Amino acid sequence: MKRAVVLFSGGLDSTTVLGHVVAEGFEAYALSFDYGQRHRDELDRAVEIARPLAKEHRIVKVDLAGFGGSVLTGEGEVPKDRDSFREIPVTYVPARNTVFLSLALAWAETLGAFDVFAGMNALDYSGYPDCRPGYLEAFERLANLATKAGVEGEGTYRFHAPLMKLTKAGIVRRAVELGIDLSRTLSCYDPGPGGVPCGSCDACRLRAKGFAEAGHPDPALATAQTRGG
Amino acid sequence: MKRAVVLFSGGLDSTTVLGHVVAEGFEAYALSFDYGQRHRDELDRAVEIARPLAKEHRIVKVDLAGFGGSVLTGEGEVPKDRDSFREIPVTYVPARNTVFLSLALAWAETLGAFDVFAGMNALDYSGYPDCRPGYLEAFERLANLATKAGVEGEGTYRFHAPLMKLTKAGIVRRAVELGIDLSRTLSCYDPGPGGVPCGSCDACRLRAKGFAEAGHPDPALATAQTRGG
Repeated sequence: MKRAVVLFSGGLDSTTVLGHVVAEGFEAYALSFDYGQRHRDELDRAVEIARPLAKEHRIVKVDLAGFGGSVLTGEGEVPKDRDSFREIPVTYVPARNTVFLSLALAWAETLGAFDVFAGMNALDYSGYPDCRPGYLEAFERLANLATKAGVEGEGTYRFHAPLMKLTKAGIVRRAVELGIDLSRTLSCYDPGPGGVPCGSCDACRLRAKGFAEAGHPDPALATAQTRGG
Repeated sequence: MKRAVVLFSGGLDSTTVLGHVVAEGFEAYALSFDYGQRHRDELDRAVEIARPLAKEHRIVKVDLAGFGGSVLTGEGEVPKDRDSFREIPVTYVPARNTVFLSLALAWAETLGAFDVFAGMNALDYSGYPDCRPGYLEAFERLANLATKAGVEGEGTYRFHAPLMKLTKAGIVRRAVELGIDLSRTLSCYDPGPGGVPCGSCDACRLRAKGFAEAGHPDPALATAQTRGG
């Protein structure tokens, strides 16, 4: 069985990717990061969601909060009700995906896996530079120069972003087709206690738009309401 | 004063780079990693050496040992007295420089620094794939796609490897010219108690060859002998 490493946060996108990887017949190695994010519920949810899908799930600690530069790791306010996503927002974490993909590459090389999957998408997204197609291609090129396995020809690393060209509605439809349980996924940048989504950050708004356009209720909202009261 | 981030292990090469960066008029931000390396003395030395040279020195913890794949982070034997460096040795740590450069990029972006320096050299080296010129160019290209600062045109990241085309003897001469104190630098992969170099691993052998060819005694050996007895 071919192995694949999956960047996995426990949100809608990376959960759909994890389901996709399993459906494609890979043995999935899910990788999450404890990087000083303000919403630590994310990691508990990731553990829960990965359990039935991944062969192994690792949480690697890496201190991006120490560098600062983002409200997602710091103390500033997460912006709410933004209408335009043309500017890179303050939720951008400097070089986050580069750090995450590097660590995914390190794990892949020790596992003998040549496929790495990530949930980036460039349509309904927050405008982060490290979510665009050219970025991932540049990383793939780097990976094949950077590693013993790449250089000695044991295989060629491929970095996949199967959601890259999907809208959020397309991602929701894909997850539903794959039969993935989305009820525990958490996308919110600024959840309340117990992981109740705020409803107005970029991530909540993009998610709500996706479910609305796909014509599906968001099962995580039902769960949150039930748990909340 | 322009800021630069310097990958800094406290060895001969990165100490020379740190001195070079300061001599070039940069404000130096030295970055070391606690990545599970077997020789922890390295980090104590790095702190000592960086103090007079760097504006700030950070040690970031990132668990590469958890992934395995190298004797430098594991329990196997460090190879001694190798004569050929044509094969990539077991001291190679999967994707290590990619992880380190990613974290340097994250810090650089938050500092507003566009220059990152690393001590790679491709002449007298152990044969690691992530020490070659093409690799660093690929990383630079990635960095300018990956970041807010790169994309919004606030500046262009440059990744410098000023030792790339120097022999070990050339590095020693360069350090001596710059007046850098090399007496506390530690290159050995497998030092004894107190950081006494083994003398026979690749790093020790390359270092000894460099000092011999440059016609300088290695001041770290004198220090180690004094401290050892």
